[in-house]
Amino acid sequence: MSVTVIMYHRTMSRWEPDARGRLARAAIELYVERGFEQTTVADIADRAGVTERTFFRHFSDKRDVFFEGQDSFQAMFLDVVTAAPADASTLRIVELALRSVATEFEPRRPWSVERNRVITLNPGLHERELIKLVQLKTSIGAALRERGIDEPAASLTAETLVSVFHIAFQTWVQDGNTRTFSQIADASLSALRVVIA
Amino acid sequence: MSVTVIMYHRTMSRWEPDARGRLARAAIELYVERGFEQTTVADIADRAGVTERTFFRHFSDKRDVFFEGQDSFQAMFLDVVTAAPADASTLRIVELALRSVATEFEPRRPWSVERNRVITLNPGLHERELIKLVQLKTSIGAALRERGIDEPAASLTAETLVSVFHIAFQTWVQDGNTRTFSQIADASLSALRVVIA
Repeated sequence: MSVTVIMYHRTMSRWEPDARGRLARAAIELYVERGFEQTTVADIADRAGVTERTFFRHFSDKRDVFFEGQDSFQAMFLDVVTAAPADASTLRIVELALRSVATEFEPRRPWSVERNRVITLNPGLHERELIKLVQLKTSIGAALRERGIDEPAASLTAETLVSVFHIAFQTWVQDGNTRTFSQIADASLSALRVVIA
Repeated sequence: MSVTVIMYHRTMSRWEPDARGRLARAAIELYVERGFEQTTVADIADRAGVTERTFFRHFSDKRDVFFEGQDSFQAMFLDVVTAAPADASTLRIVELALRSVATEFEPRRPWSVERNRVITLNPGLHERELIKLVQLKTSIGAALRERGIDEPAASLTAETLVSVFHIAFQTWVQDGNTRTFSQIADASLSALRVVIA
């Protein structure tokens, strides 16, 4: 049995070292360079150095690549919620999470703009994106309850964090935007405090 | 041509006076009386006094009835946003909308509990419900911009209103809840002010 395992690993590493990751990176590069519509699965497989068949072993179609990395997307938020000082207020946790996520997003704006453009045009992808944000709210709510924050404060904080993130993101990817994600997120959170005051 | 139109109307009114509305009401009654799973399309058609074929002319299946009345659901919120005094603050608009919607929901708790139970158990319906709430946010955001409220305040207010509504709703339909929708909505809004403070 251990021989089988070793051979399997050897085959994987010879023919497909991190094929999924390379396919995702190749797709992202091509979507940004040429646009989503102008990129074929054959182009993506070619740039990643694998066959189309390998592409379809990892993704159902070229849109599926947009949802690669959902775990690390959620982790960006959850790591901050978990690591925030024990005495941090809910507002402070929201601020810390927004700043951390903004820093992660900042260098990827070309990809985020292209991804957002394609997703907004496609109702099926748009729904999938919305479901992703709802799952994020649910996870953040659970992480806040783990910190000892009661309901409804935990769910309200999760809703607030994801709402401000989402609205800031939409502003950040707009044509002609020159502000950083952090600047926009700070301004959105201030605007929310005015709305609720 | 006018003869055709008249005959069409006469046929409709003889055989199916508001068949859609009667089917929806019959389904709601039966879901509350017997539970969703124990109710068949034949039962619903029978109680509404129409054929199963008529049911399927109006709804794709017995779950589809849950999404009847989405326009009036949205209107509950939008009417308040539109009618609020010109000098009302965003928080005041949120309060007014929550109170008005709470009053509308209050007498329908048995239906809301059954509807929520079935929707939560079914991922496809759950997604459809989430999309409905996103559409509501978009409509409220547009209505607030019509009132002259700028971005990001308009979107943030819409997100806040729908989030507080949604969290209050989930609390209201819980087993053993004895508080009114209005009491829960007021408490949720107060909790949000603490979260953001």
